[in-house]
Amino acid sequence: MKQYNIQIDENGKLRHFLTTEGLKRQLLVDILDHAENFTSVGNRSVKKIPLLRGNTIANLFFEPSTRTRTTFELAAKRLSADVLNININTSATTKGESLLDMLRNLEAMHCDMFVVRHSQSGAAHFIARHVAPHIRVINAGDGSHAHPTQAMLDMFTIRRHKKEFADLRVAIVGDILHSRVARSQIHALTTLGVHEVRVIGPETLLPREVQNLGVHIYHDLHAGLANVDVIIMLRLQRERMTGALIPSEREYFELYGLTPEKLAFAKPDAIVMHPGPINRGVEISSEVADGPHSVILEQVSNGIAIRMAVMSIIMGNRFGNDEERE
Amino acid sequence: MKQYNIQIDENGKLRHFLTTEGLKRQLLVDILDHAENFTSVGNRSVKKIPLLRGNTIANLFFEPSTRTRTTFELAAKRLSADVLNININTSATTKGESLLDMLRNLEAMHCDMFVVRHSQSGAAHFIARHVAPHIRVINAGDGSHAHPTQAMLDMFTIRRHKKEFADLRVAIVGDILHSRVARSQIHALTTLGVHEVRVIGPETLLPREVQNLGVHIYHDLHAGLANVDVIIMLRLQRERMTGALIPSEREYFELYGLTPEKLAFAKPDAIVMHPGPINRGVEISSEVADGPHSVILEQVSNGIAIRMAVMSIIMGNRFGNDEERE
Amino acid sequence: MKQYNIQIDENGKLRHFLTTEGLKRQLLVDILDHAENFTSVGNRSVKKIPLLRGNTIANLFFEPSTRTRTTFELAAKRLSADVLNININTSATTKGESLLDMLRNLEAMHCDMFVVRHSQSGAAHFIARHVAPHIRVINAGDGSHAHPTQAMLDMFTIRRHKKEFADLRVAIVGDILHSRVARSQIHALTTLGVHEVRVIGPETLLPREVQNLGVHIYHDLHAGLANVDVIIMLRLQRERMTGALIPSEREYFELYGLTPEKLAFAKPDAIVMHPGPINRGVEISSEVADGPHSVILEQVSNGIAIRMAVMSIIMGNRFGNDEERE
Repeated sequence: MKQYNIQIDENGKLRHFLTTEGLKRQLLVDILDHAENFTSVGNRSVKKIPLLRGNTIANLFFEPSTRTRTTFELAAKRLSADVLNININTSATTKGESLLDMLRNLEAMHCDMFVVRHSQSGAAHFIARHVAPHIRVINAGDGSHAHPTQAMLDMFTIRRHKKEFADLRVAIVGDILHSRVARSQIHALTTLGVHEVRVIGPETLLPREVQNLGVHIYHDLHAGLANVDVIIMLRLQRERMTGALIPSEREYFELYGLTPEKLAFAKPDAIVMHPGPINRGVEISSEVADGPHSVILEQVSNGIAIRMAVMSIIMGNRFGNDEERE
Repeated sequence: MKQYNIQIDENGKLRHFLTTEGLKRQLLVDILDHAENFTSVGNRSVKKIPLLRGNTIANLFFEPSTRTRTTFELAAKRLSADVLNININTSATTKGESLLDMLRNLEAMHCDMFVVRHSQSGAAHFIARHVAPHIRVINAGDGSHAHPTQAMLDMFTIRRHKKEFADLRVAIVGDILHSRVARSQIHALTTLGVHEVRVIGPETLLPREVQNLGVHIYHDLHAGLANVDVIIMLRLQRERMTGALIPSEREYFELYGLTPEKLAFAKPDAIVMHPGPINRGVEISSEVADGPHSVILEQVSNGIAIRMAVMSIIMGNRFGNDEERE
Repeated sequence: MKQYNIQIDENGKLRHFLTTEGLKRQLLVDILDHAENFTSVGNRSVKKIPLLRGNTIANLFFEPSTRTRTTFELAAKRLSADVLNININTSATTKGESLLDMLRNLEAMHCDMFVVRHSQSGAAHFIARHVAPHIRVINAGDGSHAHPTQAMLDMFTIRRHKKEFADLRVAIVGDILHSRVARSQIHALTTLGVHEVRVIGPETLLPREVQNLGVHIYHDLHAGLANVDVIIMLRLQRERMTGALIPSEREYFELYGLTPEKLAFAKPDAIVMHPGPINRGVEISSEVADGPHSVILEQVSNGIAIRMAVMSIIMGNRFGNDEERE
């Protein structure tokens, strides 16, 4: 577990945000509480607060993702930070510069924070272990390892609808094997003390070690959804699959796609979540995605608030106490 | 005509800016009047006013155009807005996300305005019909349909030189068939009540329906330019042409390229306009493009002022009354 | 020499910054003095001063360079300017627009400064000769001609460590032939009056005319480094080499790569510099690059300060007198 302590400074405060694994409940709740302050900012006509004014945040995207990059860029700009977008494929590495030399250079330019996206698991930890003490690192997704801000925006969305985590049954459905999102969700959900976490999917998409995480495994969607409060559908990572792990998208949809009929097995007030972008007709039907149980677009809005909260917490510039949620 | 009402809200105010077609004269004049406020901003040492501070404007460019994107980005930044540049080719659509899901996501991120460029006619209308009520849409060029901010900057440039539209003869020369600019200009000119609009070009580049728009058609440049006050040269859209609509660029220049000799047929104080970028020696000679009748670079400056005006009008944050033009 | 006067206005003030060649000592010292003001900005929590607020700076990169573009973008943003990044390959020139027409358009959009990077020597001078009088131009590297901000950040770094230029022996090692950095350094060093400038490299990488610049030529690294105060290693421009000018990287490293053994020939307190990005094991060993004599990362930090200084000097908005270095 020592490798995860790198996220916490000597005073127990969050220094980097790399994974939800190994973080104390109190820290996760603090992020959720702090994010409440920022939900209203998006609805104001002037969507900007000066918490990180004059700070420089570099988006280091070794793997392209307009969507995720956009949410971090918006969060940073609404905190009044300056943002550098660095697409590493078209960057200095084409001149053969090593990753560490690139980090040293960005530090010397007085960057304050790196938001890192990388196709290799462990990349954000590697970078956090090698940056100067004043630099903060946020993992924006590394391989199939972790995507902690996505997991926290999901927790935030659940809490806004369901209040007490201890009462909840949560089902995560789909391609657990390739999903950094699922890993980060499972760690956050168990830390926050939900009653039960279920993972549902075909054997080929459920990693063997998942049982060690304290979740219940289902291969049948009907059985798995019975009586759950929250359904988290995962994106079928078609571009990440190697070999024929699923027979066909059509057959996948028949077995694991969420339709109104299958949704009926869950609790009547169950909410349906998805990290996006959704594959309509593959893992979820349009009726469900656009239906009354869906909170998918709320997740997107909450994503900005959570990223603003994490950025301001790790920079030590928190929202003013008088405006804080009690 | 119902399809164009989408631009106007229930109080008759401009909500989107998609086309000059079907807009009342008063609305076009209001845009021109309002733009007068912004012409001075470009000449100030601090070229920034806080009218759209804290607003988020997303440039959705489905068709690449550095030039047009730059003018909108500058206009937005000088209004103090935050700008997101989203090049859709390298974006979430590569993961198979639908256009509508992308719009929903950008709305959920609390964007306020979409500036849309698309190779297909009707794309901006489609988007405007499907956005949430608080979102504003500006058409930055869709297929061969419309390019309304270009048309309005042209009207603005004409008015600064010629004052009364009712007295003017205006000639539009060149590839009318492929030109969204020409369509938007014709609608604006007729709505503003110019005395006569002429279109001049070879038969292969004049669409048949153009006669319905109330313009006079000329195939001979000399005859068409006789006694006109304003000459608008169009860019030869070589990249948009399918098949051999013109014999050769050289022959095209001989027949329809604007030279000092041909310019002499117009009124002595005629102004020469071009939306840019110009093809020197194809549709216009350098002597004319750089000569005393040319107002081509004024058009570029006016383009920033018009875009600032349109953005602030549709956002409902107009320039202060005490500073307004009377 | 007349071609370089374009940098200086009628009052002897710096108007563009294109090359260190032909500039008076006083001007170079003024840049160094002014940069002292900006070194502290990078260490502040709010790294922003409003000197260029409301100014528009366009980065015109005809040759891709994320690294250099980033340093100029950061310098501009920390001066509160608005920045346009224009990558010319994917820009209007694809529509056949000429360079001059593009400049005219950017001027008409009320840009204030162009930062130019180009693969052809003389490109920045060409642009400076053709811009409107109110536009300022900074050369961010043109072909193998000049890279003056790099040279000045090197002078700044030397002065911070060594104080008096008149006492110094400086060695520049490596590929002088292809190096715009070396040319700009030699002009700056001789103008600032260093005791001796040496260039060290194989005959194939030393241009014949270099002797006219008042430098001493060495082909042997041991001899060349004897008793020097400053060692400037150049990057082996592998991507710029045509033909086999060096036998192999391995042999190059053996003859001209800087190792602790070779460094021992220099003065005990010699500093080691490199413009980056470094090729470890080609022109420099990791022991030296990361060792106590290396000031390579200080150069990066100083690069932001120097670029802020040059930008504010040529825009005529200098740091407040009361805060200036004495």
